[in-house]
Amino acid sequence: MCMTTIERPQYRTVGTRPVRHDGVDKVTGRARYGNDVNVPGHIYGKILRSPHAHARIRSIDTSAAEALPGVRAVVTGAEMPMAAGKPIPTSEGIFNPFFLSANVLAHQKVLYRGHAVAAVAADTAHIAEEALKSIVVDYEVLPAVLDGTEAMESSAPQVLDDELLVRHTSPFARGGAMTAINEMIHGPNVASAFVMDAGDVAAGFESADVILEHEYTIGAAHQGYIEPQSATASWSQDGHLTIWCSSQGHFMIRDLVATMLGLSSGEVTVVQAEIGGGFGAKLTPTVEPVAALLSRKCGKPVKVAITRTDVFEAVGPTSASRIRLKMGFTDDGKITAAEARLVFEAGAFPGSPVNGAANCMFSPYDIPNARVAGFDVLVNKPKVTAYRAPGAPAGAMAVETMIDEYCEKHGIDPVDFRLDNAAKVGTRRVNGTAATPVGIVEVLEAAKASEHYQSRLPGPNAGRGIAAGFWGNNSGPASAVANVLPDGRVSLVEGSPDIGGTRTVAAMQFAEALEIPVEDVRPSIGDTDSIGFTSLTGGSSVAFKTGWASYEAALDVKRQMTERAATLWGIKPEDVQYSAGVFRNARDEGQQITFKQLAGRLIEAGGPVVGRGSATSRGYAAAYAVHIADVEVDPDTGKVQVLRYTTVQDVGTAIHPSYVEGQMQGGACQGIGWALNEEYVYDRDGRMTNSSFLDYRMPTALDVPAIDTVLVETGNPGHPYGVRGVGEVPIVPPLAALANAVHGATGVRMTTLPMTPTRVLEALEGGQP
Amino acid sequence: MCMTTIERPQYRTVGTRPVRHDGVDKVTGRARYGNDVNVPGHIYGKILRSPHAHARIRSIDTSAAEALPGVRAVVTGAEMPMAAGKPIPTSEGIFNPFFLSANVLAHQKVLYRGHAVAAVAADTAHIAEEALKSIVVDYEVLPAVLDGTEAMESSAPQVLDDELLVRHTSPFARGGAMTAINEMIHGPNVASAFVMDAGDVAAGFESADVILEHEYTIGAAHQGYIEPQSATASWSQDGHLTIWCSSQGHFMIRDLVATMLGLSSGEVTVVQAEIGGGFGAKLTPTVEPVAALLSRKCGKPVKVAITRTDVFEAVGPTSASRIRLKMGFTDDGKITAAEARLVFEAGAFPGSPVNGAANCMFSPYDIPNARVAGFDVLVNKPKVTAYRAPGAPAGAMAVETMIDEYCEKHGIDPVDFRLDNAAKVGTRRVNGTAATPVGIVEVLEAAKASEHYQSRLPGPNAGRGIAAGFWGNNSGPASAVANVLPDGRVSLVEGSPDIGGTRTVAAMQFAEALEIPVEDVRPSIGDTDSIGFTSLTGGSSVAFKTGWASYEAALDVKRQMTERAATLWGIKPEDVQYSAGVFRNARDEGQQITFKQLAGRLIEAGGPVVGRGSATSRGYAAAYAVHIADVEVDPDTGKVQVLRYTTVQDVGTAIHPSYVEGQMQGGACQGIGWALNEEYVYDRDGRMTNSSFLDYRMPTALDVPAIDTVLVETGNPGHPYGVRGVGEVPIVPPLAALANAVHGATGVRMTTLPMTPTRVLEALEGGQP
Repeated sequence: MCMTTIERPQYRTVGTRPVRHDGVDKVTGRARYGNDVNVPGHIYGKILRSPHAHARIRSIDTSAAEALPGVRAVVTGAEMPMAAGKPIPTSEGIFNPFFLSANVLAHQKVLYRGHAVAAVAADTAHIAEEALKSIVVDYEVLPAVLDGTEAMESSAPQVLDDELLVRHTSPFARGGAMTAINEMIHGPNVASAFVMDAGDVAAGFESADVILEHEYTIGAAHQGYIEPQSATASWSQDGHLTIWCSSQGHFMIRDLVATMLGLSSGEVTVVQAEIGGGFGAKLTPTVEPVAALLSRKCGKPVKVAITRTDVFEAVGPTSASRIRLKMGFTDDGKITAAEARLVFEAGAFPGSPVNGAANCMFSPYDIPNARVAGFDVLVNKPKVTAYRAPGAPAGAMAVETMIDEYCEKHGIDPVDFRLDNAAKVGTRRVNGTAATPVGIVEVLEAAKASEHYQSRLPGPNAGRGIAAGFWGNNSGPASAVANVLPDGRVSLVEGSPDIGGTRTVAAMQFAEALEIPVEDVRPSIGDTDSIGFTSLTGGSSVAFKTGWASYEAALDVKRQMTERAATLWGIKPEDVQYSAGVFRNARDEGQQITFKQLAGRLIEAGGPVVGRGSATSRGYAAAYAVHIADVEVDPDTGKVQVLRYTTVQDVGTAIHPSYVEGQMQGGACQGIGWALNEEYVYDRDGRMTNSSFLDYRMPTALDVPAIDTVLVETGNPGHPYGVRGVGEVPIVPPLAALANAVHGATGVRMTTLPMTPTRVLEALEGGQP
Repeated sequence: MCMTTIERPQYRTVGTRPVRHDGVDKVTGRARYGNDVNVPGHIYGKILRSPHAHARIRSIDTSAAEALPGVRAVVTGAEMPMAAGKPIPTSEGIFNPFFLSANVLAHQKVLYRGHAVAAVAADTAHIAEEALKSIVVDYEVLPAVLDGTEAMESSAPQVLDDELLVRHTSPFARGGAMTAINEMIHGPNVASAFVMDAGDVAAGFESADVILEHEYTIGAAHQGYIEPQSATASWSQDGHLTIWCSSQGHFMIRDLVATMLGLSSGEVTVVQAEIGGGFGAKLTPTVEPVAALLSRKCGKPVKVAITRTDVFEAVGPTSASRIRLKMGFTDDGKITAAEARLVFEAGAFPGSPVNGAANCMFSPYDIPNARVAGFDVLVNKPKVTAYRAPGAPAGAMAVETMIDEYCEKHGIDPVDFRLDNAAKVGTRRVNGTAATPVGIVEVLEAAKASEHYQSRLPGPNAGRGIAAGFWGNNSGPASAVANVLPDGRVSLVEGSPDIGGTRTVAAMQFAEALEIPVEDVRPSIGDTDSIGFTSLTGGSSVAFKTGWASYEAALDVKRQMTERAATLWGIKPEDVQYSAGVFRNARDEGQQITFKQLAGRLIEAGGPVVGRGSATSRGYAAAYAVHIADVEVDPDTGKVQVLRYTTVQDVGTAIHPSYVEGQMQGGACQGIGWALNEEYVYDRDGRMTNSSFLDYRMPTALDVPAIDTVLVETGNPGHPYGVRGVGEVPIVPPLAALANAVHGATGVRMTTLPMTPTRVLEALEGGQP
């Protein structure tokens, strides 16, 4: 269902549902993913991984491996150019190249089981695997710490050595008083900490009639992308490095690999392959620098592809987190104060999304007095990577279940409560920023009016929950180049790796602006040499920024085509009018030429037409969603079955409604998996015991009902077509919505995720788990 | 040696000799040629070829081949969409898609030994080859004709059936009276004929004191490129066809393949691989449409690569030709009249370069009365393809040796004669056009002044010959896109397949215009989707047109960078000055930023910078060269040894003098091979008996001396940097220069090429061969 709440122009292409341009090649297997790249003469790289969760590397003896016939190169972390350096404290979080460097090939210490310690390139994959076995690593095994809260204790093993642990305050901690921040950074493994502070929290709690307080434990969840990481690197003897891989941003891979390997960005070219899912985990290099080092050493192109087990053991999930939340309410349904303490596990290197949780958890509401303290804590587990709206689902889990608890106890409709406490444009947030326009009211009203919300619950063990979610979205620069082909089709080259159908969405905005059929646009993703800088496919930004760059490229094509028509007719460009694919002479009604006809005559009219466009991050807008979930809980087994699920979201303008619906459904699905089943199970030695898709329990088609979608279009005045990012916010509400639904069905409030049958049963039998 | 005869600006990059950007990858084997392409899941195509020089195909039984395990598709010529059609008479010569279609997969008749009749795609190359053997073709063998003169006789076997032989007058026969043209198109195999006529030829001969007349027979020569043709085609189930191949023009391959297969140009993408030589032979499709048909039929990507023997037997050389030439001279050294009859073998389909010979042979001279009749004649040999300055070497062989004969008999210095009879700007040519500026006088004077020409002959059996050569050159549209990288390097994407170092030459013109080091430019060849239309790498056009497009792209980058600097400083773009890599605030001397610094700040200054440029064919200019050859002829064996060789050429502006010298030396080498050794030897059944590089005798390093070069730079006022095409004219003089040198050494005038030891010995023993 699509509800448009604004007046907008009559679009020709925007809002339609064309077949995606890359669809047939993807369903027939013709599309070329990272591991499909076969550079002539390439050989195979394999990676040796640590069997210990924490150990110092005393020595690595690679001589036997090097002596094996067919082995061309062996590298260890000592050969990473940054191995001898110091961290770069100004580049924080997940993009810090020093930590990325030490993560892709360990420097001095291994910090988690699966941490890469050496790599081999050989003529065949089998020789390379054999060679790994003959590498002798002398480890001094150290005690490991696997839990964030334990890691903060002074007695805990220290993950990063003192000289590497640059403790700092998070740059994301905008606004608020940074009180006592130095005292907070205590314990051996706190990489960063912050406090955000707004209003007078003590007074806020004073004025509350009701105060609720709980601690929530949210497990780590994997992004569950289908395609494991792989890369082929060819480091030419002329010094230029070319990498073929699939990532969420080949320009980012270029720039990070260049920094990690001591190159300049112009010395690296990255060619983007099709990507089999990313969801945040493919923003930064994993195997690329390793393949590059091997290639330089052996003088040949080297392909490195990792396994599913490697993905689980070495490419991080999102953070596990522990949230202590306290909220104050008046009896008549107003929030007076909120205070949260967020402990997020970063894995082996700094960079948890604790800031994402802090920035978003209170944002749907007008809370006069609030404080959040956040901790980014190192543990001996893989470095976390981003996962769709990083941090926000955990934050929402806490806030949205606590609101539900209040509403239930006070007999207030949870939608009405949210309408009553909704943030307005300008509402001061805990991080010091002011709320920008997003359709909170529109979405809540649509949710309340929905058939689902109005329906009766289906059975005796069933319950219904709702939850809201906020995500700020993001953007960055983007580029597009358009080439007019002789038959009037146009090739559109853009720079955003296409995960969710975005090349079609860019083509649609291009077609809309140029007034030609979208079927006549052939979109593709250029490599880092063939298109201008384009920032990551992340932050729900692609439809926004690459759509905008494509719109600008269309205008540039239109301008030049107008000049060509003028040349052909011997008139001034200002006397040429264009609409709906036809150029007309304003001074001679009979004289006209179609876009397609003119495309076939460009050479005589002055030469080929190439249009260009770029966009900056100006104008992007936040996202808001409400989810409604019905579940049934088996009282004998504790199994939670999702019966019905509806997502309601402010989507700005749905360029291609099917893909927007797909994002909403996909995010809800991932949230369902995180809420109910997905879990990282470690033994006491830090070994993941369920590192396969058989044992890591993602939802299947049998676990999830058809997910209904309600698209609320409020438009984004900052974008030519009103685009607002839609990709991430759908994963924010499900954890809380399902916990609330489980309460509805059982009367039990679950505060530990995932809500596996075991945990639910324990809760049913013994109260809070 | 480089002689600049014009005043020109002080260039920073033009005229220097940087290392070519693709050099290291080519010498280390990292460069990716056509056969290096490995599309995932591709299978192998092989082609069945005719064992007969001329036969009607009664039937083809492919059932046994289709039944072979591993065979995925079999196609025959009947499946070519054009097989049921008629030729397209308006599209003449080598680019006629109907004839190309019937050439790449025979329709109804095979017309030469090696003509493709069917193709198989199978899981392995061996299965495909095995399958070819089980295809049963029922041939009705027909008598074949292998010689152009014989083919014109009324009793000769007819190569093309009546309904396909669209006789016509050549569109190249500009100017002159087309007298008796209908009568001339006689005999069963004359595909086209023309007469060019200027002045009063009969009166011209009346006024002559001396009339010379000879017939010249010039053998076919192969272009001798290193890389046999190969292509991989992937025809998606969505209807889009992608082809990876190396060619001299991927846009031309796109458009011709589209026409041949009934597609629109926008439904085909061609990705250019590196090319291992072309010299004219890779302008048109060979295996591409076959690979495409196989791919459509089996639903998989198919790679077809042919062998060296296939190249010799099925991908045409240039024409063999027979030229009857008559020239009239006054006793005091003036040409009064010239008349030529040119019979050029087209091979199995129309398209010899007879027009090239007719247009160029008299062009260096002011000949008041001239006539040329030309015949394009079909024979049962492979369809000819273009070869460097197509037609001109044969024409020059006749004219330049006859002039030499006159000069020798009259004791006139052959350089002085050419100076005396030189065409001037505006001189009326036999084809009706007027001569344009080219440095004939400058080149002749440089030749005369050269140490070589002034030196004494080295020994008793030695002789010296000189000859001139003219070539009109050509051009077409071209495109370039430039992306500014964050470190200040620039990626330049252009559309010309790079055969002779042209990507560096484009990068140099780009660097010159943008005032940055050429090492900071990273040039590459875009596919047909990523860059605007760019015409063939042919006609000596690339340095001219793609250089120009790159120059325009540089100006577009400069414009945008200026705007970015203005944005950064909050001033107007017109207040920003740029020179030598530095932007300056015209109103504040202290405010400046380098190109590299600004490149790193583009995002804050308004977004990525993508520059675009295009060029048309406007402004291109002709080429002229004089070669001086010293040879020694062994009187006992007839072997001709080249002792010394100098090429003198008007090169306009030598952007990269090393590559210009390379073109001059390479063309001279190819001419030496054609003159002395290279030959197609057929048995009476039309079977080539020397179809390998062992038996087809190209010159080796032992056969050719170091070739001296004298670069005369007259500039081309039609181009921003004075570029004049340099690639083709170097092959025009050698045939005649060497024949004149052999005469100097032996007193014998050779009129049949190649001048093999056998022929020379026969001539020494018995007069004219």
